[in-house]
Amino acid sequence: MNTTELTLDQIYQLAFDCLSAAGANQDNADAVANTVMRAEQDGSISHGLFRIPGYVATLKSGKVNPNADPQPEQVTPALVRCNAQNGHAPLALARSIEMLAQSAKTCGIAALNLTHSHHFAALWPETEALAERGLVGFACVSYMPAVAPAGGSEALFGTNPISFAWPRPGKVPLVFDMATASMAVGEVKIAARDGHKVPLGTGLGPDGEPTDDPKEILKGVLLPFGGYKGSAISMMVELMAGPMIGETLSFETKENDNADGGPPQGGEFILAISPEIMGGSDWAEHAEKLFEKLEAMEGIRIPGQRRHKLRNSGNIRSVNSELVQQLRTMSGTAE
Amino acid sequence: MNTTELTLDQIYQLAFDCLSAAGANQDNADAVANTVMRAEQDGSISHGLFRIPGYVATLKSGKVNPNADPQPEQVTPALVRCNAQNGHAPLALARSIEMLAQSAKTCGIAALNLTHSHHFAALWPETEALAERGLVGFACVSYMPAVAPAGGSEALFGTNPISFAWPRPGKVPLVFDMATASMAVGEVKIAARDGHKVPLGTGLGPDGEPTDDPKEILKGVLLPFGGYKGSAISMMVELMAGPMIGETLSFETKENDNADGGPPQGGEFILAISPEIMGGSDWAEHAEKLFEKLEAMEGIRIPGQRRHKLRNSGNIRSVNSELVQQLRTMSGTAE
Repeated sequence: MNTTELTLDQIYQLAFDCLSAAGANQDNADAVANTVMRAEQDGSISHGLFRIPGYVATLKSGKVNPNADPQPEQVTPALVRCNAQNGHAPLALARSIEMLAQSAKTCGIAALNLTHSHHFAALWPETEALAERGLVGFACVSYMPAVAPAGGSEALFGTNPISFAWPRPGKVPLVFDMATASMAVGEVKIAARDGHKVPLGTGLGPDGEPTDDPKEILKGVLLPFGGYKGSAISMMVELMAGPMIGETLSFETKENDNADGGPPQGGEFILAISPEIMGGSDWAEHAEKLFEKLEAMEGIRIPGQRRHKLRNSGNIRSVNSELVQQLRTMSGTAE
Repeated sequence: MNTTELTLDQIYQLAFDCLSAAGANQDNADAVANTVMRAEQDGSISHGLFRIPGYVATLKSGKVNPNADPQPEQVTPALVRCNAQNGHAPLALARSIEMLAQSAKTCGIAALNLTHSHHFAALWPETEALAERGLVGFACVSYMPAVAPAGGSEALFGTNPISFAWPRPGKVPLVFDMATASMAVGEVKIAARDGHKVPLGTGLGPDGEPTDDPKEILKGVLLPFGGYKGSAISMMVELMAGPMIGETLSFETKENDNADGGPPQGGEFILAISPEIMGGSDWAEHAEKLFEKLEAMEGIRIPGQRRHKLRNSGNIRSVNSELVQQLRTMSGTAE
């Protein structure tokens, strides 16, 4: 794969220009470009510039509101709701996180229900933002049917990722962010693009049989991670990011979608918890005892650390050259 | 295996008598006996009378307070804390659930932090109690080290079960309750007792090698379900049921325990959510659309339904005769 070296500023600007050219206003283009740039910065390439064509498709098709002006509201002292006004999720999230954090710092626990949003990013930006404020964060979203319930062969669940972040004052927070599918669709797409195989058990082909060919799985169906137990967690996400917050189930999301290839409308459920209020003043020091044990074990790493190491590895990132060329054309800045 | 038929009242009374004979006061013996009877009623035998010798051991060794008088306190409008006063968990839970439910109905979301408790039951009694009140429930506990983090071979995590319940007004709620270990210790113990093998991948023997012999795994270590992803969830439970609520990590729980074979002291984190406040008035009808899809798929069942079917299957249960004899002796009611 040929790559092109870009600075983080160039990555941000390329994303911003593509979104602006497709009609997004300043605030919305800025929020999405920032999220995309931060994914590239952290080496999370499946959520980086790779997603821009999808974001742009939703602006061109008119599915997404390019001028969304989401305003979070305090429903109860422990509950924040934000109607994203059919915009991309990053602006609504950027505007809601502080209100969620303050609610959790007052009540010990609080939730943010994001509705009418088009989410196409990782979940760690929101859970990590909570951890940076000294809070425990949990988030989940559903998507469009791509995963068969364990025992079945028909897609019903989205890849339904969950993310969890634990704050470590003075240190990099513990953050995991994982599909409850055996693999994220973005990862399967990248494997397909790059001609790599995937492990057996990742999914079924269109014939309902197990396969290691990502192209076949993209035409067939993914499986949940961890069999029946992972399937139960995926179902929990369907309910929490759907009917629990007044938003659609994955199969409804698909029915409502215009199939432009970009993110459909859906919801996100986010939880913020104050370990200071719940656990008392020594909560952080106490949790470090677990991390010390983990770090002492050979072959074990604390999730989130690798991303942060990449985050701090200078200002240049290598991006697939074909993608860069495509985006330059899209933004009207091609040489 | 020889079995003895007992009525539900006889099961309750046998449990109550064992606990009373070991010193538990009326309220504590009643709460535990009720939890044990309900497990037998639902066919959850690994949490039924099978657990009484463990409960009794903690009373005889003096580890558990036989006269615990737990009083839940409202810490914030969305947070209830209950110090179980070193008693068995059922009494503290029975006294706290209503305050938790009311908090969730006021705030949309609320948490119960149970501390200084000895938990030795399933988690579905508490999440199902929330679902019966029209609330979404989530609960988790840690225990003593029995599970190696994915990639390791040394026990650090407890079996760290999680339970989730979704209310279905007029119907049996959806409830799952599962160890984040590949299998619950209780199940492994029953397999060992009954001479059954367990699937490869369940755990490692004392030599660090995979085995299908439950006796070897009980001397070695369990593995998490679902590899690295299940391991991440198990770690989340360590933090949520531990430092987040001011309670011990599994390895600390073991260090503090007197090894009497009964449940050690630890914490439980419980979440209650009002889908009415969050999702609006059609939340229940909406979620049924998912269950209709699931029920239409061959080979898929909605978790919790089988237990409820057993619950309503008359008044008689078959219990391992050896166990019944042991408990009759223990209670001083042997014929």
